[in-house]
Amino acid sequence: MLLRVRAAVAQLAAGLGAQPPAEARGAGAGAGAGAGRGSPPPAAFCRPAFLQLTPEELRRADDHAGRAVQSPRDGRRRLPWSSGYAEVINAGKSQHNEDQACCEVVFVEQRPSPRGWLSSREGSEELDGGRKGFYFHYWALFDGHAGSGAAVMASERLHLHICEQLRDLVEILQDPSPPPVCLPREAQTGSADPNQMSYAEDRGEVLNDAVPRFHLEKAVSHESLVIGAIENAFKHMDDQIERERASQHLAGGCCALAAIYLMGKFYVANAGDSRAIIIRNGEIIPMSREFTPETERQRLQFLALLRPELLGKEFTHLEFPRRIQPKELGKKMLYRDQNMNGWAYKKIEEDDLKFPLIFGEGKKARMMATIGVTRGLGDHDLKVFSSNIHIKPFLSCFPEVRVYDLTQYEHCPDDVLVLGTDGLWDVTNDEEVAAVVMEVLTSYEPNDPCRYTMVAQELVVRSRGVLKERGWRLANDKLGSGHCPAVG
Amino acid sequence: MLLRVRAAVAQLAAGLGAQPPAEARGAGAGAGAGAGRGSPPPAAFCRPAFLQLTPEELRRADDHAGRAVQSPRDGRRRLPWSSGYAEVINAGKSQHNEDQACCEVVFVEQRPSPRGWLSSREGSEELDGGRKGFYFHYWALFDGHAGSGAAVMASERLHLHICEQLRDLVEILQDPSPPPVCLPREAQTGSADPNQMSYAEDRGEVLNDAVPRFHLEKAVSHESLVIGAIENAFKHMDDQIERERASQHLAGGCCALAAIYLMGKFYVANAGDSRAIIIRNGEIIPMSREFTPETERQRLQFLALLRPELLGKEFTHLEFPRRIQPKELGKKMLYRDQNMNGWAYKKIEEDDLKFPLIFGEGKKARMMATIGVTRGLGDHDLKVFSSNIHIKPFLSCFPEVRVYDLTQYEHCPDDVLVLGTDGLWDVTNDEEVAAVVMEVLTSYEPNDPCRYTMVAQELVVRSRGVLKERGWRLANDKLGSGHCPAVG
Repeated sequence: MLLRVRAAVAQLAAGLGAQPPAEARGAGAGAGAGAGRGSPPPAAFCRPAFLQLTPEELRRADDHAGRAVQSPRDGRRRLPWSSGYAEVINAGKSQHNEDQACCEVVFVEQRPSPRGWLSSREGSEELDGGRKGFYFHYWALFDGHAGSGAAVMASERLHLHICEQLRDLVEILQDPSPPPVCLPREAQTGSADPNQMSYAEDRGEVLNDAVPRFHLEKAVSHESLVIGAIENAFKHMDDQIERERASQHLAGGCCALAAIYLMGKFYVANAGDSRAIIIRNGEIIPMSREFTPETERQRLQFLALLRPELLGKEFTHLEFPRRIQPKELGKKMLYRDQNMNGWAYKKIEEDDLKFPLIFGEGKKARMMATIGVTRGLGDHDLKVFSSNIHIKPFLSCFPEVRVYDLTQYEHCPDDVLVLGTDGLWDVTNDEEVAAVVMEVLTSYEPNDPCRYTMVAQELVVRSRGVLKERGWRLANDKLGSGHCPAVG
Repeated sequence: MLLRVRAAVAQLAAGLGAQPPAEARGAGAGAGAGAGRGSPPPAAFCRPAFLQLTPEELRRADDHAGRAVQSPRDGRRRLPWSSGYAEVINAGKSQHNEDQACCEVVFVEQRPSPRGWLSSREGSEELDGGRKGFYFHYWALFDGHAGSGAAVMASERLHLHICEQLRDLVEILQDPSPPPVCLPREAQTGSADPNQMSYAEDRGEVLNDAVPRFHLEKAVSHESLVIGAIENAFKHMDDQIERERASQHLAGGCCALAAIYLMGKFYVANAGDSRAIIIRNGEIIPMSREFTPETERQRLQFLALLRPELLGKEFTHLEFPRRIQPKELGKKMLYRDQNMNGWAYKKIEEDDLKFPLIFGEGKKARMMATIGVTRGLGDHDLKVFSSNIHIKPFLSCFPEVRVYDLTQYEHCPDDVLVLGTDGLWDVTNDEEVAAVVMEVLTSYEPNDPCRYTMVAQELVVRSRGVLKERGWRLANDKLGSGHCPAVG
């Protein structure tokens, strides 16, 4: 829920003092360099920790026949802000629910440094008994495929990587002056190097950086530092999955959609085909873009053209509206390449008989006949069926980050941010979601903390449909779907 | 001017019968394969043919001191539709005006074929005594740099290349059924190949193509065929400039912005930093996007990363906010790579001391320290100063094409399409242009054909400013600019 910022943050800070989220507390202090190290191997099936399911409830959540909708309940751990959440297992797509979610309040503690560039300045807040830092709020969905390992690890670790990337920025983000373009050399571990500049020289240089010394010096905003931190956190998360996939038995990959609230702004990072929207006063504001073979066609074709060896002689970088038959050689066929948005005819040559890199339409569009999303975490072992061609160089782990400034508007309790996997958006469009949100919210008091979970449940129930003779059906008798949407 | 479509086209067709534009008439019949061949070498300085300037007027148009605004006048050749046009020489940027413009009505004649795939079908119109085809209307601006050769040739030939690309589509575009995915083999010149399928077999196959034979067959629209034709026409235009630059003494390059009206739709193709907007009932609809080192940073960095040899060891694909000094080695500097929209710090290494591929901000942003646009025609000989590093592989000739369907709205005589080079848009924003348009149009009768040229003149005069002691100044005392906007 998008409350007025200061009120929300104040309320939250008060709550944190009394009941710090255990895992989040650990993040600032120790997660740093070793995020994920030493954690136990993830179980084959688990649900988000904040659901706090009993073993019996966990079994029920895994039941494909009942498809019970799961939500956090009152009296158990409350989600930060006025967040709601609901999920349901998919209808038989995989044995277990491969999706995951995470919701945390994370303290970013400034990295200890013998001489921080701003250490003598005023303005950096000291919180929690001398520890300098700030909090961010975090909600994320991970839509897993081909195994739950990547989604589970990402749900446990992505926020810690974000925290790690932000630790170097604690002082810089709290200082209203523009970020320094250049930072001093880091202190050497062990004895000081006598060849290095003196402390005074070094600091002098750094402080000069606040005033542009060159005519051409680009101004970089605080906001873009946070975006860069989130982008690199996704990369580090993906690297960790790659490193530990063997030892931790991590299978599969996942789309990742994360919303980070930090210093008055929402940063929504998306890698995959999940989606986020803000509903403000009935108006819909898209906060993400989907990354699929269709939306990323030109990037993929460009890479394939420049690195044809990645296609293993099986694929052509050109797109055709259908497979070409060998007997059609010499005829003219519609095609498009990395430079084109339109279509044109070309004479069919031998090379065009290869399978197109991008093939199919809409939900059936596939890259290398294998995968329907083009961004996400994991999938380091994913190959084209019965071949040695890797998907990964085409599948990117980098998110697109969109920013929403909460201080620019007066928000009311009915303004919400909705995060959902494709299970929600495949069967429910933006306007229908907005209608459900409004319908449910008006039937609860504005200060009832349950109302957001009720919205999430209603969205999930409508997406799941009702079990009929021919399977799970929606109100319009179309097939229902699974996956977990969250409402924040 | 966006008149109601049918009215505008009807009026136009009537006019065409009486007075066919000579050059355009040639296009359909003979421009085909040899567009541009045998044309005289372009003069060092010339202005658009439709201005029909006398030698004396031409000299005056080239005068940097007077900077007279040029427009087509009444009584001379009228521009198609209710188009207005005005231009002025730049204020000393180059000796001559390197910009060009073109406005044509082009007849696209179906390419002669012994057995067109649709030749026995009804519905393809026979115009002009048996010649099958259709007309398109064409307005284009070419913002030249480093010489006028490329802009002159493009202004003389681009529409012929578009015509050439459309010739194979005459029957397909006039047939309301979806375009065939595959066309039959072309007829062999000389004696028929006995190994080829018989005519009947071949035709049978082709007609089957209208019904999708495969489950996965992508539907391709007529509109996307036109887009593909325009995209490939830009490529052929660029190839022609490359082929003939030596023999025709063509220097430089140019941004190209073209608006094509065809079968009820405007196709606006842009390669460079010119811009087009539609002003409809006071509302502004952007019809193009600018291609600059800043807007195309990620594409350029991606290419540089995959093809580092194109950088000749002089440039780094990373972006930094300023040049790095050798003594800063080992410090941390803000950077971003091809995957990032945000910024982060990295430790400066030897390789980072190279010049950044993209450098500078706004109008001062340059690719390889050389050029401020990243799409356009020509520039095949352009190299980084005192090096052998070519700009061309980074500089793309492909346009982005946007489509506006005129049949979807009822337009009034005050609705206009404005095309302008950066000379207009650098000093006048969308809202100011819309205000000038409205102000000028209301002072003329709606049926006065001069009113659109009056708008163009007013826009140019405001962009040029008035000659004061310290040069040409705008009303706000900022520096005025040159270049030619057109109003259609």
